[in-house]
Amino acid sequence: MEIVVDTISLRVPAGQTAVLVKNLYLSRDPWMRDRMSKHDDSDPTVLAPDFVIGEAMVNLSVGKVIDSTHPDFTAGDLVWGMTGWEEYTLVMEPESLKKINHTELPLSYYTGVLGMPGLTAYACFFEVGKPKKGDFVFVSAASGAVGQLVGQLAKIAGCYVVGSAGSDEKVSLLKTKFGFDDAFNYKSETDLGATLKRCFPDGIDIYFDSVGGATLDAVLLQMRHGGRIAVCGMISQYNLEQPYGLRNLYCIIAKAIRVEGFYFTFYMHVYARFEEEMACYIKDGKVTVVEDVVEGIDSAPAALIGLFSGKNVGKQLVAIACKGMS
Amino acid sequence: MEIVVDTISLRVPAGQTAVLVKNLYLSRDPWMRDRMSKHDDSDPTVLAPDFVIGEAMVNLSVGKVIDSTHPDFTAGDLVWGMTGWEEYTLVMEPESLKKINHTELPLSYYTGVLGMPGLTAYACFFEVGKPKKGDFVFVSAASGAVGQLVGQLAKIAGCYVVGSAGSDEKVSLLKTKFGFDDAFNYKSETDLGATLKRCFPDGIDIYFDSVGGATLDAVLLQMRHGGRIAVCGMISQYNLEQPYGLRNLYCIIAKAIRVEGFYFTFYMHVYARFEEEMACYIKDGKVTVVEDVVEGIDSAPAALIGLFSGKNVGKQLVAIACKGMS
Repeated sequence: MEIVVDTISLRVPAGQTAVLVKNLYLSRDPWMRDRMSKHDDSDPTVLAPDFVIGEAMVNLSVGKVIDSTHPDFTAGDLVWGMTGWEEYTLVMEPESLKKINHTELPLSYYTGVLGMPGLTAYACFFEVGKPKKGDFVFVSAASGAVGQLVGQLAKIAGCYVVGSAGSDEKVSLLKTKFGFDDAFNYKSETDLGATLKRCFPDGIDIYFDSVGGATLDAVLLQMRHGGRIAVCGMISQYNLEQPYGLRNLYCIIAKAIRVEGFYFTFYMHVYARFEEEMACYIKDGKVTVVEDVVEGIDSAPAALIGLFSGKNVGKQLVAIACKGMS
Repeated sequence: MEIVVDTISLRVPAGQTAVLVKNLYLSRDPWMRDRMSKHDDSDPTVLAPDFVIGEAMVNLSVGKVIDSTHPDFTAGDLVWGMTGWEEYTLVMEPESLKKINHTELPLSYYTGVLGMPGLTAYACFFEVGKPKKGDFVFVSAASGAVGQLVGQLAKIAGCYVVGSAGSDEKVSLLKTKFGFDDAFNYKSETDLGATLKRCFPDGIDIYFDSVGGATLDAVLLQMRHGGRIAVCGMISQYNLEQPYGLRNLYCIIAKAIRVEGFYFTFYMHVYARFEEEMACYIKDGKVTVVEDVVEGIDSAPAALIGLFSGKNVGKQLVAIACKGMS
């Protein structure tokens, strides 16, 4: 990766319908790793294009509209959506941008709790997980951007929720700050199957999976009849040459388990409802947010890489112009 | 296994509420293999008990009530349900037996098209697969008891359906007798991924899985966004010491795919509707049935074992008293 310095005009070029956005916060998300792998673009089943070497990579961000020739946006609007790893982005498909309604809350929240990770936690847990009061819920990567919210939503829904994380500091956060009923450090447990049996003697109704691999395999054995596995990520797998070979999927037959993948763009139709509901939870103190903020675009690559070894504590984001909002 | 010859009284013992059934047809089904493996019975997530060495193994069958002390059954009733690999079974939980309503159809159909495999095909395809007109449907083990029905139901639902089977004879059956749009012999295809791409250039909407393993892995790569994988069995896996390690499950995230296991006892509430609808399809010639019938209880073990190498052509069953219905 390299930082390229250039001079641009802060106007939408004449004749184009576009929006020029000044990026304030860049979100670091595990999905970005997948865009760095080679896919067959002619395959109609491949969803998103690979990153193109030599071009600015895309990311989700929070920004401010500097100039617009699109009727829905005017200079000064605060927005979130898909832009580039850069200070300014000319957004050619402004329909993909969302206006920020709750400017009274920290703007950075729109990279997390009020943005894609928040919508993922909310829609994936409620629409895919279909929780019932009293359900036993397990959340992996539980202190991360999505996991911390799923745990708190599970408590709001009246579930019993246990989380796993990769350090004692994170485990402590889960129990003291996010209200998980129990939590464990998966790095210090030698037998994950035994740990899950101890935490869930009657089995698991909902597994919210962000990690995949051996964790998913162990969870499959411990699921209850009619259980739901909501898969929003498999972060343990993205850097492997050869993915982990999952051996226990057969469990889904006799127990009639549903395993469902989640991609947030399929659920943008619930975004407006989600944004209002989540903003209320935050204001009422029912949902607490922990962010891991680094400063400056130079920090962006390391912040992304850190996600894959669990360096971040909470939602990872990069502030690139938070004080320069003119 | 051994055949034990004994003399029993053809009456329900005094003081018991039970039904004595004369078994006419024994169904051979892949699930029976799982009951021969050792499970931890104290584990609350294990559904069904293991077979007990020294006792008659259980199976689904069609039979005739010889004696009954249960108010819902009288001598002469034709029933299907869980009995033993034996000529007569004393059923202590008669609630598990279903009366046969369509005695004008071959009784053996209640081991297949009108019994558990039929309900599995119907409920799993419609309730889990949720087909829409024009969907692209792939069916593995397509000439078997369940697959042959799924393919025909998919055609009734207006889908495009391709099946795989393990011999040219079976492939021919799929195309000429069951109305599949296309079919292939998986044993003569060297690259399953390429075969699936050729059969489904735009991808697969619904995969009806009875085999699991490498087939499922190849299908995952070829699924379309929002696809559904209805899993009613993984017959390729049941005899393996170490199950196949599935590497492509990550595909379910970006494509928002649902993978759902199916166990027919969860769907007994739709049985009455299913029985009427399927009986109509059979009478109208919209559903054709192929059975593989062997005779005599001595043939029962080999008939079960044959399922795992695909020896059967169509629904495998054992006629043990079809001519002795007095």
